[in-house]
Amino acid sequence: MLIIGELINCTRKPIALAVEKRDTSAIQKIALDQAKAGAHYLDINGGIVGKESDSMKWLVETVQEVVDIPLCLDITLPEAMESGLSVYKNGEKPIINSITDEQERFQQMLPLVKKYNAKVIALCIDDSGMPKTSEDRVRIAKTLTSKLKGEGLDKSDILIDPCIFPLSVDNQNGIIALDAIEAIKKEINGVRIVCGLSNVSYGLPLRKKLNQAFLVMGILKGLDAAILDPCDKGLMASMIAAETLAGRDEYCMNYITAHREGRLDP
Amino acid sequence: MLIIGELINCTRKPIALAVEKRDTSAIQKIALDQAKAGAHYLDINGGIVGKESDSMKWLVETVQEVVDIPLCLDITLPEAMESGLSVYKNGEKPIINSITDEQERFQQMLPLVKKYNAKVIALCIDDSGMPKTSEDRVRIAKTLTSKLKGEGLDKSDILIDPCIFPLSVDNQNGIIALDAIEAIKKEINGVRIVCGLSNVSYGLPLRKKLNQAFLVMGILKGLDAAILDPCDKGLMASMIAAETLAGRDEYCMNYITAHREGRLDP
Repeated sequence: MLIIGELINCTRKPIALAVEKRDTSAIQKIALDQAKAGAHYLDINGGIVGKESDSMKWLVETVQEVVDIPLCLDITLPEAMESGLSVYKNGEKPIINSITDEQERFQQMLPLVKKYNAKVIALCIDDSGMPKTSEDRVRIAKTLTSKLKGEGLDKSDILIDPCIFPLSVDNQNGIIALDAIEAIKKEINGVRIVCGLSNVSYGLPLRKKLNQAFLVMGILKGLDAAILDPCDKGLMASMIAAETLAGRDEYCMNYITAHREGRLDP
Repeated sequence: MLIIGELINCTRKPIALAVEKRDTSAIQKIALDQAKAGAHYLDINGGIVGKESDSMKWLVETVQEVVDIPLCLDITLPEAMESGLSVYKNGEKPIINSITDEQERFQQMLPLVKKYNAKVIALCIDDSGMPKTSEDRVRIAKTLTSKLKGEGLDKSDILIDPCIFPLSVDNQNGIIALDAIEAIKKEINGVRIVCGLSNVSYGLPLRKKLNQAFLVMGILKGLDAAILDPCDKGLMASMIAAETLAGRDEYCMNYITAHREGRLDP
């Protein structure tokens, strides 16, 4: 399971504040905490209106000073994405978060994916609007995979995000997303599936509990990667248990090791 | 989700001790705690070697003095099962736990199911031994359902237990059981699926974490009932979250109500 640490995101108020103040040590502490907790990538979202490019550049530089794991650059403005990519220096490919099958966004992001030899999160949205059913998601995932492959990307560098909507809007939104994960895995050989966990619980209380159960279900359906809070020990323990139950843990050694290292305790 | 409280089971040492000592208040407290925590049935296992019949009778009588929820009688010796059934007096049908498709066990238990107008847990085992694949389980489930229906039972009174083996023996045992749940639901219309949660984690550390993830996955696959510890708040909260994610909770009202009542807190 590929873990993308979600905490450095300017839609979170304390992060936006730290970025505005250029509080290096606050940001670096959150980067280090996530790396230590087991993140393989760190998501970097510098979305402060009007200051996206500067924020992305500063965040990438600041985080890279202290951690040596690669980054997932998460911003819609293409110039802000490039601002971050231009100072990216990890040996591993960055992840561009995200491209869609909306014509404008595709054309803006694709050159960056190619120029910076990046992996990319391909979000199941196209110009007909937000996807409704899991079939919509499979269709868009197929189109995006085919277009990106046509542009020379390797399937292993494509991470499909089925696009998850809140249960609070429609109580079938969880099932629709989970069915989409299963169907995309089945119908498109070799791509990986990623999702942001927390959308599903938007507008509901005690969101952690729903995110945790959703991660467990997602792993059963074939989820390969998740953007989540790696410092949430309960969530990480659920992830490890779910991988063991899903038959992805030979001799249950990962589970047993995690237990020995105290990573399963509440 | 039908919750069968698992705690009054003589394979647990403190329970066996309380039964040996005829410690009425200890047993009644555990019965009351489980009922209060939301159990719909209480499993009663009086398996003390050589004393099964007396234990079952005493347990059923003792528990019925304080709770008015129905019981699930859990013992393999037919005379001990009847000893418990003979003093059962709840208005709801008891559950007989369990019958199998082993010829001897089937012939011993069937008359009791009919005489006492009971629901029955039908465990996917036959005379060819323990089931290996999920296909084995579906085959045995079909045979058992058909035989029980032929004897006049209503489908809604049959609870199929797919028979879960530990991950510590084979790391595919979780997936095999989950696939069986899905396949049985799909292929046999109208029966319900039950399982004991804790088998899956036998021999592994921090079993709660695995049981919890297994319950979440089971609910996604269509599990209708579980024999579990209703006093484990984390487990119950996961169950409620899983039902909401699985689309079984209209307007998420069950989740929101559970939160308001403090039932989701750790």
